[in-house]
Amino acid sequence: MNFDEAQVIAELAAIFGSAHKGVIVGIGDDGAVVATSPKTVITTDMAVEGTHFNTAWSSAFDIGRKITAANLADIYAMGAKPEYLVVAVTLTGDESMEWISDLAHGIAHEAASCEVSVVGGDLTRGAIKIIAITALGSVEKPITRSGALAGDSIYISSLPGWSGAGLKLIQRSEVDDLQAYAIEQFCAPSVDYSAAVALAEAGATSMCDISDSLITQAAQLAHGAGLAYNFDRELFTADPEFSALNELALHEGIDVWQWIFAGGEDHVFLATGRELPGLRVGSVAKGEGVTGLEMKKAPDTWRHFN
Amino acid sequence: MNFDEAQVIAELAAIFGSAHKGVIVGIGDDGAVVATSPKTVITTDMAVEGTHFNTAWSSAFDIGRKITAANLADIYAMGAKPEYLVVAVTLTGDESMEWISDLAHGIAHEAASCEVSVVGGDLTRGAIKIIAITALGSVEKPITRSGALAGDSIYISSLPGWSGAGLKLIQRSEVDDLQAYAIEQFCAPSVDYSAAVALAEAGATSMCDISDSLITQAAQLAHGAGLAYNFDRELFTADPEFSALNELALHEGIDVWQWIFAGGEDHVFLATGRELPGLRVGSVAKGEGVTGLEMKKAPDTWRHFN
Repeated sequence: MNFDEAQVIAELAAIFGSAHKGVIVGIGDDGAVVATSPKTVITTDMAVEGTHFNTAWSSAFDIGRKITAANLADIYAMGAKPEYLVVAVTLTGDESMEWISDLAHGIAHEAASCEVSVVGGDLTRGAIKIIAITALGSVEKPITRSGALAGDSIYISSLPGWSGAGLKLIQRSEVDDLQAYAIEQFCAPSVDYSAAVALAEAGATSMCDISDSLITQAAQLAHGAGLAYNFDRELFTADPEFSALNELALHEGIDVWQWIFAGGEDHVFLATGRELPGLRVGSVAKGEGVTGLEMKKAPDTWRHFN
Repeated sequence: MNFDEAQVIAELAAIFGSAHKGVIVGIGDDGAVVATSPKTVITTDMAVEGTHFNTAWSSAFDIGRKITAANLADIYAMGAKPEYLVVAVTLTGDESMEWISDLAHGIAHEAASCEVSVVGGDLTRGAIKIIAITALGSVEKPITRSGALAGDSIYISSLPGWSGAGLKLIQRSEVDDLQAYAIEQFCAPSVDYSAAVALAEAGATSMCDISDSLITQAAQLAHGAGLAYNFDRELFTADPEFSALNELALHEGIDVWQWIFAGGEDHVFLATGRELPGLRVGSVAKGEGVTGLEMKKAPDTWRHFN
């Protein structure tokens, strides 16, 4: 960086400085002080250069949006409303001020879409770029991963798989509209947070964000509930996006179920309940384990410590 | 890593699994749910391999302790009581299970010393090791950096400079007891959190942790309060540790004030007020800027985005 760190901090503070009514002490002290409800949800997710993003593929704005979305989706997945973020960033020193500013604008943009404020952070140097975000939200009745009841149906808020498809296509120099859409879903997904709110309001008994892939997280939910999660592959094909995703997969010679079941990084909500909005894809029954998510080859799953 | 990530997560969850009475939903969901008071302090601090630590110098246990202490000290510096931590870790894949376990034990050890629980986290891969921690605490009356009043005295909870001395000495193969003490303060400082509590209870008008160096943070406090911070170098020499630190500095041919004023990474508390515990080192007056922290050469300061 051919500028002072104090300058970077001032720039970031200005971008993040939009006041949220609950902020009592904002950026610039040892810690921020915020108004909180009796039950607070807290989650953290980091994006690592070379693992989660690559500056040759993604703009700083998109990188900022994506990691922010991952945190916000986790808060919504608990049936909660996000309120505050803190952002710890490692920079290599090779970044331009414009790149850093774009990153901050991407974070602030995604946060503002949920009326969330960035209230603090940490800026350090290192050999690679890292963005670690922690989100806080308020909740009255948390919706956990383990609350499903036998007889519940299983719903997804939209079709997963686009992010996995985008990862496969991202290095292509020429892409058509459909391929470009998939790449966009990988680089900076548009998360439908309102879908999680609708699932919670409709009485979801369990919910999670399937960013670690449907197959991994369905297994966790089934285990958590001590019940069997039985999916019906045919029901996924009813999704209006299925034929487009399938077309992409056929063109690439890939089993589309690999993307849908095991793609990962899709910020789609999976929930259980009697009658919920979204696409019904299976049912919960006495027993254990997951059925109906079989693929042609073993999945490359994404696993995080949540 | 010659083992599955699920194994690492299970190991970490077991180490961090000690139940805090306020934990409503712990590790293993999209987010943790914790009981919070109406005012919550939140702070984040990350430790980056090659910048903040080096595995050749520090044990995993010490690395974990140190970054945890940095976060806890920030919470105490706001006049707050820390309660919960989330921990995001990037590993290279070259770590042994023992190293990872030691890191987690270091974090858990420091957290437990303040009755704080680790309630969640994120585990990812990358080219270097990174530990990003976010701490939450409860506060009734936050003590900010800007609350000093003209006529207040300035106090420090103990003599800073040991961490800077330790950094200078860390690569020596043979060290005496005094040098070993300094190195220990760099690698895994013993933070006297009770000193911050005592300063808050005695009515500190402003307080901060001087991990970014006394000279940097005194300037921030003076600017925040719109007052002059006038230090008296002679008063520092009254500290019972001064002669030992000075002896080390003389031996190294270093200006001891360089370590004391500009060393950085000392988790010492700086506060203002009428009559406080700790060492009185100056006074606050009408005016602006900082006097009395002059050194023989310009400091190498540490700056973070707080």
